[in-house]
Amino acid sequence: MADNGPDISFERVALIGLGLIGSSLAWAMRARGLARDYVGFSRSEATRSKALELGFIDRAAASAAEAVAGADLVVVAVPVGASGSIAEEIGPHLAPGSIVTDVGSVKQAVVDAIAPHIPQGVHFVPGHPVAGTEHSGPEAGFAELFEGRWCILTPVQGTDPGAVARITALWRALGSEVDTMDARHHDMVLAITSHLPHLIAYTIVGTATDLESSLKQEVIKFAAGGFRDFTRIAASDPVMWRDVFLANREAVLEMLGRFDEDLTALQRAIRYGDGDKLEEIFAASRAVRRSILEAGQA
Amino acid sequence: MADNGPDISFERVALIGLGLIGSSLAWAMRARGLARDYVGFSRSEATRSKALELGFIDRAAASAAEAVAGADLVVVAVPVGASGSIAEEIGPHLAPGSIVTDVGSVKQAVVDAIAPHIPQGVHFVPGHPVAGTEHSGPEAGFAELFEGRWCILTPVQGTDPGAVARITALWRALGSEVDTMDARHHDMVLAITSHLPHLIAYTIVGTATDLESSLKQEVIKFAAGGFRDFTRIAASDPVMWRDVFLANREAVLEMLGRFDEDLTALQRAIRYGDGDKLEEIFAASRAVRRSILEAGQA
Repeated sequence: MADNGPDISFERVALIGLGLIGSSLAWAMRARGLARDYVGFSRSEATRSKALELGFIDRAAASAAEAVAGADLVVVAVPVGASGSIAEEIGPHLAPGSIVTDVGSVKQAVVDAIAPHIPQGVHFVPGHPVAGTEHSGPEAGFAELFEGRWCILTPVQGTDPGAVARITALWRALGSEVDTMDARHHDMVLAITSHLPHLIAYTIVGTATDLESSLKQEVIKFAAGGFRDFTRIAASDPVMWRDVFLANREAVLEMLGRFDEDLTALQRAIRYGDGDKLEEIFAASRAVRRSILEAGQA
Repeated sequence: MADNGPDISFERVALIGLGLIGSSLAWAMRARGLARDYVGFSRSEATRSKALELGFIDRAAASAAEAVAGADLVVVAVPVGASGSIAEEIGPHLAPGSIVTDVGSVKQAVVDAIAPHIPQGVHFVPGHPVAGTEHSGPEAGFAELFEGRWCILTPVQGTDPGAVARITALWRALGSEVDTMDARHHDMVLAITSHLPHLIAYTIVGTATDLESSLKQEVIKFAAGGFRDFTRIAASDPVMWRDVFLANREAVLEMLGRFDEDLTALQRAIRYGDGDKLEEIFAASRAVRRSILEAGQA
């Protein structure tokens, strides 16, 4: 970040979306003095007021278009299904030379939705900080959310290298490691590491919810046996996740198909009492855990 | 524990099995001075030596039969599939008036395997501390494991109430809440709160393991998106879990069938782009999480 590194400070940051990620990004940038001025917009008046009250934005704009006026960095941090309409609205108001980035958990659909609305001379750098908690909303944010986590950038061919370098340096300054890959590849990797786990967690919590009511009370009571970890994952923002599954349908269905085959094989091993097969499959899982610990991602 | 409460101190505790639960129980009892003498047995010589070295047992016995001789409390803490052969071995050596308990995650199968070998005048109180970590072995134990957790007892009709009261008081002294229920009911509750979550976690980790190797490396790298929680659950002891699924086959297959139907419904909603249905299912999960937080089990 010293001499000749990319410039990671900005004059005015416009945050479109003031939830967990938007607020955390603002706090993280503020903690490091990376922008002079923070303008925010959310469709919800209550969210805008809360963001002002918490103090992670200096000013709430009445529209997304107003928020981006004069901003040299625009961060789109809305559920991915809203990316297209936001881009359409802000497109004509983006300042020449400004950088637009996003934080969506799906990348190809977001690139398809946003890129057509970015005018010549504005740089679009799609991004995905692989970080989050089960909490959502403007009060859920905190400055350390991105520390030690990955941020994946998926710039399209021909994107200004200087803009990519600035966004890369920005995430590094916030404590993240940065990787760059193709948007479709990103969507496949995240389908198995994030989207499918959330889908499974939502499913099992739903299955438990539908139990006869006497059993259901005991599920809550004895949740410590493993179930509570799933409920934590399944407490994540419903609208955000709805959009993720709709936007990454193909990759999720592909991974879900593989999962379903594997589950059927385990079901069969249980039904026919094949203990050797069960033990073999279970033992292999430990090696994966060890690799994750070694990679410092646990 | 004061005047007239059940006596929770013992002269000699025999621990059959010296893994995570056995060692934690010993540490927890030692921390509270609840027994004079701790004798341990494990089939593995390395485990016996380690237990002596760590100091949670005073003496390692050469056989399970030798371990229980003269013990007034015997704790069977082995994978549930080994319960029957252990009970057969120790049965003739159990001291009159002693209490035998176990810690198995499945109860009906364990009752069926152990009870026939318990002689007249010895009291068998089947138990299941709903507590654990992803670590296993004698080094994994710690005195606080059971604090704030449930322990479920499933005594058969006609069991000496005094023995049940002593085991109840023992677990309470170790910081657990105690509930008593029918063994089959226990197995159904645990099938959904614990066994199915573990099966699902093992499956998804297995699915990721079978990916093309380039993708697999990235699964490790970007595990923070949700996958790592599953790998933690799936790092649990493979032999213990093999035995759980074999011993609780019917209840697990029943819950798995329900889960599978629910997953198919979600898959269909994704395929046909039914966002309302997805959001509705996801939103319901939050209420379950809230209940668990309120129940103090998160």
